[in-house]
Amino acid sequence: MAFSEFRPLDEKSLIEYIKATPSLSSKIGDKCDDLTIKEVGDGNLNFVYIVIGSSGSFVIKQAIPYVRCIGESWPMTKERAYFEALALKEHGQLCPDHVPEVYHFDRTMSLIGMRYLEPPHIILRKGLVAGVEYPLLAEHMSEYMAKTLFFTSLLYRTTSEHKRAVAEFCGNVELCRLTEQVVFSDPYKVSQYNRWTSPYLDHDAEAVREDNILKLEVAELKSKFCERAQALIHGDLHTGSVMVTPNSTQVIDPEFAFYGPMGFDIGAFLGNLILAFFAQDGHTDEGNDRKTYKEWILRTIEETWTLFHKKFTALWHQHKDGSGEAYLPEIYNKPELQQLIQEKYMKDLFHDSLGFGAAKMIRRIVGVAHVEDFESIKDASKRAACERQALELAKTLLKERRKFQAITEVISAIRKLQS
Amino acid sequence: MAFSEFRPLDEKSLIEYIKATPSLSSKIGDKCDDLTIKEVGDGNLNFVYIVIGSSGSFVIKQAIPYVRCIGESWPMTKERAYFEALALKEHGQLCPDHVPEVYHFDRTMSLIGMRYLEPPHIILRKGLVAGVEYPLLAEHMSEYMAKTLFFTSLLYRTTSEHKRAVAEFCGNVELCRLTEQVVFSDPYKVSQYNRWTSPYLDHDAEAVREDNILKLEVAELKSKFCERAQALIHGDLHTGSVMVTPNSTQVIDPEFAFYGPMGFDIGAFLGNLILAFFAQDGHTDEGNDRKTYKEWILRTIEETWTLFHKKFTALWHQHKDGSGEAYLPEIYNKPELQQLIQEKYMKDLFHDSLGFGAAKMIRRIVGVAHVEDFESIKDASKRAACERQALELAKTLLKERRKFQAITEVISAIRKLQS
Repeated sequence: MAFSEFRPLDEKSLIEYIKATPSLSSKIGDKCDDLTIKEVGDGNLNFVYIVIGSSGSFVIKQAIPYVRCIGESWPMTKERAYFEALALKEHGQLCPDHVPEVYHFDRTMSLIGMRYLEPPHIILRKGLVAGVEYPLLAEHMSEYMAKTLFFTSLLYRTTSEHKRAVAEFCGNVELCRLTEQVVFSDPYKVSQYNRWTSPYLDHDAEAVREDNILKLEVAELKSKFCERAQALIHGDLHTGSVMVTPNSTQVIDPEFAFYGPMGFDIGAFLGNLILAFFAQDGHTDEGNDRKTYKEWILRTIEETWTLFHKKFTALWHQHKDGSGEAYLPEIYNKPELQQLIQEKYMKDLFHDSLGFGAAKMIRRIVGVAHVEDFESIKDASKRAACERQALELAKTLLKERRKFQAITEVISAIRKLQS
Repeated sequence: MAFSEFRPLDEKSLIEYIKATPSLSSKIGDKCDDLTIKEVGDGNLNFVYIVIGSSGSFVIKQAIPYVRCIGESWPMTKERAYFEALALKEHGQLCPDHVPEVYHFDRTMSLIGMRYLEPPHIILRKGLVAGVEYPLLAEHMSEYMAKTLFFTSLLYRTTSEHKRAVAEFCGNVELCRLTEQVVFSDPYKVSQYNRWTSPYLDHDAEAVREDNILKLEVAELKSKFCERAQALIHGDLHTGSVMVTPNSTQVIDPEFAFYGPMGFDIGAFLGNLILAFFAQDGHTDEGNDRKTYKEWILRTIEETWTLFHKKFTALWHQHKDGSGEAYLPEIYNKPELQQLIQEKYMKDLFHDSLGFGAAKMIRRIVGVAHVEDFESIKDASKRAACERQALELAKTLLKERRKFQAITEVISAIRKLQS
């Protein structure tokens, strides 16, 4: 093999690489002469190539040892590709319908070969900005989260399996640190990387930095993020990590994966749907007031949690006499006790999800990385008005999450801000 | 070196081993001819030899690949010696006054050579049964716990240091599983290993197995034990893991060490002091009603927590601008906010400690391994009466721990059971 040490590929060397790699070249019928290769890495970190031949296709994702959108001044381990591949394979086995298949992984090259999600797949966030409804989204995402989280938790795993896996993913520490910084730290202090829609939100950003109760609550969430190895989480499950068509939902980019709190994934997804909701007022035009679409988003938020709850508890019930070591059947042996246990577990998970979701919303408004939902609103004062509503909701959720008993109450709180 | 693979030593082969091991033979002036060797392993798991020469001494502790007191039918990894040595060295660096020095570790042989804790050092539990006061005990143990727990937590460590250490100690999973079984599972179900003072406590044991709320609470604690990597804990910090003289307090036997919840250590120590308290009525005789001694135990319980709180928060204050990544000084920048954060942290830790302490008490009364405090009470009905009071307190602590605001309220609850 020609590549015995790491080197970043380009379109030309990629072809050499494919020729020398049977698990890739076989996907295109070993015909490398008529390939179309397109670099499409619009993320912040990696290079992504779409490779299409006359009889097949795949995607190549290569991590480079720094943050692509910043440059070599911000080093970032390329070992993240290893954890991404590991998580793709693990989650893919648990939920093959919603995770793209991995064809090839090369640790030396930090390179993953995987299924090309062909058109009309687009990034969910872009669909949400465009106002496209995805009737199966809640069903699919709740399925993905229920399966990946349940089966990697102690509800299903033995302690031995759990600790072995936890230890392995401790290696993904650099990506965990990045999350700690951008989600749990930067928004709450003066940081060179922070930005917001200025001057409109200057006071709002300052209020976040001055809010003692908010900081108290975000500290609790951060400590859960750092210390609680509950399940193998995706670690970055916003609407930019999901590709969709009306019939297909595919979760990509789990390079932040590690054993952390389940609510971090659930919250990331719900929180980003809430951001999409509040952004809609910035995307109205004469032909479309987006009212129907906003209702669809709210329904999707509600259904995602409701279906997740249903699927997760169904898996639990199905496997309650299995190998999971959290609740031994000899102890949790009566239906009313199982009921009690499950209600407590799901209530705590709901509150975690609201808290983490809120933290993810806040950081997208006053932190370093913003979302296209808001960024694409050209009129800054309009954008700021949308962002302010989202920020207000997020602060309430973060500080008072334990008062929310049901997802419908969250929907009501969202509506209230718009009345 | 003669021992290239594991073999259990006896008095004779131990001498050969010492001769071939400079780090040991140097401790006795390289004179192996006049050695006195005594096997004293009265624990459940290992062989322990005291080696005394004319110009020095040490202790040899060797793990064997099964549970000593049961036999080869209960296998138990001898790798526990590796984690014990690691914890002894780590905790020893952080708190050398209260951890015996390690002279030698041999992973192949699962063998630790360490300081011999010479007479009048005795196991604290034996001192408590005998009614001996240790005026410095609270001071020393609070010092040990504050230092070992603070310095191995994210209050002092960076995320990178933390995750590396967490991963390493994930390897000690077999010992964690043993704790899960004997502390969090067996007492709450019918198990061949359980025993209690029968027939007196038959109903009490059954009541534990039938108590839904108790089981709900113990599940929450178990999940913290399995999932929360808060600090490098000793993992078995009862009064049998402490050796004392009036002036010296030495913590031994950290073979259960791993990254877990701090409250598990604090609770283990406090809970075992409470067991010692309730056992005193079984140790009265004509000359000694143990009343004064009981007051000393209560004072020691109160002071241990109070001093721990003081020392731990002092370390926190001293290192608040250090490398610890839990609470960045730029965010937690105001005295009143620091106050808020600290109060919340210490309140949660207090409640964790009460919960874990209670769980450790319960398992010593209706689980597999009992304590000499009670076992040495010959009269079964008297013993059962003592145990029942301890069990009642433990159930209250476990179920209602969040209602306790201060250690003095725990002391009051203890007194109330005796009135």
